[in-house]
Amino acid sequence: MTKFEITILGCGAALPTLRHFTTTQVLNIHEKFFMLDCCEAAQILFLKADQLKFGKLDHIFISHRHGDHCFGLPCLLSSMSLMGRVAPLHLYMTPDLEPQMRQVIDFFCHIPFEIVFHTLNPDQPERIYEDKEMVVESIPMNHGVPCCGFLFKEKQKPNRLLREKTDAYDIPVTQLAKIKDGADYVLPNGTVIPNSKLTEPIDELPKSYAFCSDTLFNPNMFEQLRDVDVLYHETTFSDADIDRAVEWKHSTAKQAAETARAINTKQLIIGHYSTRYDEAALLAEAQAVFPNTIAAYDGMVFTLPEKTRSLEF
Amino acid sequence: MTKFEITILGCGAALPTLRHFTTTQVLNIHEKFFMLDCCEAAQILFLKADQLKFGKLDHIFISHRHGDHCFGLPCLLSSMSLMGRVAPLHLYMTPDLEPQMRQVIDFFCHIPFEIVFHTLNPDQPERIYEDKEMVVESIPMNHGVPCCGFLFKEKQKPNRLLREKTDAYDIPVTQLAKIKDGADYVLPNGTVIPNSKLTEPIDELPKSYAFCSDTLFNPNMFEQLRDVDVLYHETTFSDADIDRAVEWKHSTAKQAAETARAINTKQLIIGHYSTRYDEAALLAEAQAVFPNTIAAYDGMVFTLPEKTRSLEF
Repeated sequence: MTKFEITILGCGAALPTLRHFTTTQVLNIHEKFFMLDCCEAAQILFLKADQLKFGKLDHIFISHRHGDHCFGLPCLLSSMSLMGRVAPLHLYMTPDLEPQMRQVIDFFCHIPFEIVFHTLNPDQPERIYEDKEMVVESIPMNHGVPCCGFLFKEKQKPNRLLREKTDAYDIPVTQLAKIKDGADYVLPNGTVIPNSKLTEPIDELPKSYAFCSDTLFNPNMFEQLRDVDVLYHETTFSDADIDRAVEWKHSTAKQAAETARAINTKQLIIGHYSTRYDEAALLAEAQAVFPNTIAAYDGMVFTLPEKTRSLEF
Repeated sequence: MTKFEITILGCGAALPTLRHFTTTQVLNIHEKFFMLDCCEAAQILFLKADQLKFGKLDHIFISHRHGDHCFGLPCLLSSMSLMGRVAPLHLYMTPDLEPQMRQVIDFFCHIPFEIVFHTLNPDQPERIYEDKEMVVESIPMNHGVPCCGFLFKEKQKPNRLLREKTDAYDIPVTQLAKIKDGADYVLPNGTVIPNSKLTEPIDELPKSYAFCSDTLFNPNMFEQLRDVDVLYHETTFSDADIDRAVEWKHSTAKQAAETARAINTKQLIIGHYSTRYDEAALLAEAQAVFPNTIAAYDGMVFTLPEKTRSLEF
């Protein structure tokens, strides 16, 4: 079973307070670390979080240009330099932000390692990262400025070899990797043994997480997020202030819950709270629509439950 | 008696740690607030410090372009905007930093109030602020990039009127302000009563504070800082690593103490500690040369003792 862990470093909106830093999360997926947004003081929050190590962080995804989501990035990069980083670092951001951030980095930070910029398309979902275990897709948000959320999906692990069958057919060891990857096997006499006779699906199912940073209520993303296991969605306003949410291009707690219900997620995590609200009230508002909702707090570590064919969570 | 209080919000060097944020101080001089440098998370440290209010902060002095001294500025300005500030804000910085910081502010912050930029001269001391109670001078540092420290000096308060004398000479009330400001008085018969017969110096003497952010050992500043009451001086390195201090254009603890002794200050405060040292060792090194040395810590509030003709501290 593989680790899929979300650490919320900050979950306040716009103004940092003594209760919340602004938006930053770190994902640990199979001991690969991904940072989502990078608020002021993110590097210090990162240090405070046990088990997070700068050296393991190779990918930072910035949702949009607003300072509460990105002001910590030059600070973090400077510290990485001072700490002697040599590995390349991958930064993902929207095309309006990238040239500005490049200029800030060039002037303020002295970076001895390679920075690989990846330009996000804020208009349609794109696959922006892939390795043999997982993929990341951008999720277009609707926030007045170019803005993307991020969808992390594990890949289905390959089937398990049925060794008693491969032995029975006397299949050479050199062929086993291909069969594990899905190939059929042809016996010397020409008979085809279909893959389904030689392997069986493993019990573990791939898990997925969607991070929706700042957005108006956004039905355009429902199709992409259908059945995602865990959804983080901003809840800047209460539904009583929906006019204000529309004006500022944010969502209400009720709308976040409606999104969770519409996409059939299992777990909603809310955050990005405006300081004007009691968070318990926002949580209650969301739970009235989607009961399986929890409220993020700074320092929260949420581990995605294992998901198996035999017992889904 | 008037308040002159230094709050150390952060006093670490370069890399923030769980023990220290980087350089930021706030001075409260007669309930006017002045920020010296603005590190990442300065606004949060400011919120944490009792008695400091954003609304009272009208002047921010940035010593130089290194991120550990200025990365918090765009964050602070953004928050001031969100909090509805309308009063002008004065920013003081070196000419290399100013255009870059203007661009960052223009792109990332939406500032509804006026920002007045004051360009520091990193080559010679200049009077950069003055009101009826105090002055601020820039102090050229020697740090490889344009860099200034800041010298805060109260003005001597005007003499006290000797009312029994002004009454005895039957001096009209309309003339008293002039006499308090130092004028002599001419009687109707032409006799000049010198000011010294009509006033006496008050007991309170003006206090002064010098903030020397990042610098090589810098005898060029000794004359300007002669007899300053309290000196904050960086001590990034131990004298055992003086070669490294020279390479990085920083000072050792011993050099900070030698500076304190040379300028005849009453109190040395050290800070800007490299993470490689035990701070107690740096303090001991400084105290061996200048016993009246204390080590800054994040959150320290240092009140300048009253200074009087009758009893100097």
